[in-house]
Amino acid sequence: MAKRAYPLGKVYRLLEPGPVLLLATAGKLRPNVMTLSWQMPMEFEPPLVGCVLGNMDYSYGLLKASRECTLNIPTAELINQVVEVGNCTGRDTDKFHDFGLTPKPAKLVSAPLVKECYASMECRIADTRMVNRYGLFILEVVHAWVDTAVKQPRTLHHLGNGVFMVAGEVVRTASRMK
Amino acid sequence: MAKRAYPLGKVYRLLEPGPVLLLATAGKLRPNVMTLSWQMPMEFEPPLVGCVLGNMDYSYGLLKASRECTLNIPTAELINQVVEVGNCTGRDTDKFHDFGLTPKPAKLVSAPLVKECYASMECRIADTRMVNRYGLFILEVVHAWVDTAVKQPRTLHHLGNGVFMVAGEVVRTASRMK
Repeated sequence: MAKRAYPLGKVYRLLEPGPVLLLATAGKLRPNVMTLSWQMPMEFEPPLVGCVLGNMDYSYGLLKASRECTLNIPTAELINQVVEVGNCTGRDTDKFHDFGLTPKPAKLVSAPLVKECYASMECRIADTRMVNRYGLFILEVVHAWVDTAVKQPRTLHHLGNGVFMVAGEVVRTASRMK
Repeated sequence: MAKRAYPLGKVYRLLEPGPVLLLATAGKLRPNVMTLSWQMPMEFEPPLVGCVLGNMDYSYGLLKASRECTLNIPTAELINQVVEVGNCTGRDTDKFHDFGLTPKPAKLVSAPLVKECYASMECRIADTRMVNRYGLFILEVVHAWVDTAVKQPRTLHHLGNGVFMVAGEVVRTASRMK
């Protein structure tokens, strides 16, 4: 799949519907990847994203140390990888290798893109003041990629306990909401 | 529809898939309601929710002053109300009245529930330290209601520009993720 640069001012549209993400970090020994659902847009442009990670997550320390990550949006055909990535730790597992995901060099950050995902955002930490209290990382998206061939991405939305909703019908309204 | 109290420890499951919400406040003259998509769970129990509101939103001031609101989850049959509520301001509009929504007394907060929504959360402000900088309100959910007759809620997920995705197929996996 061929990905193109996606306008930073539209990045909120990738996140606002609430898809499950794969967060990738450069790692010390090897790149790592985790499943993440606690995310929301926080600003249109430059695009800011709030993400909550548990302080027991291996990626929590990697993100805090490297101050960079990528947020990647998987679609329904990657559901097994999403579940497997979410059920083990990168402390003792090479998740990219073991689950058939491909780390691909990013343009502006050291963390890799996840090639199999239909969209990816390269992020740098913008604010860590709420990390210790809530695990809340405020990230700035500095570059974004989208596979423009995917018109209606069948994103995954976690309903809890390993149950996922797959994105359904799309409805256009005359709303003036951004 | 008959709503029942929903366990606080499961509230994250209502928000994690990323549905559009109707945020209701008590208001000065009358109750008010706004459309909100920038939300995420921040803690399991007691349940915390992060919400980003624009400081030009009428509800921003109402929430800051009253320190209470409700978060209500509409389903697809309410799409017109969601759009209309999102396209005007409560400064000069009685949105509940004009758009056929019913404010219903909550149990623990002064803000009303939106009766037509399939689920509602009663919230109090837990942390305002990021309000001035990011419009980020951290709310604690103190009581939750769900219409237990709705098994697969057709929630709305905003893709930007008035385009909505309606919740589709549900897939159960053997994941151990919470």
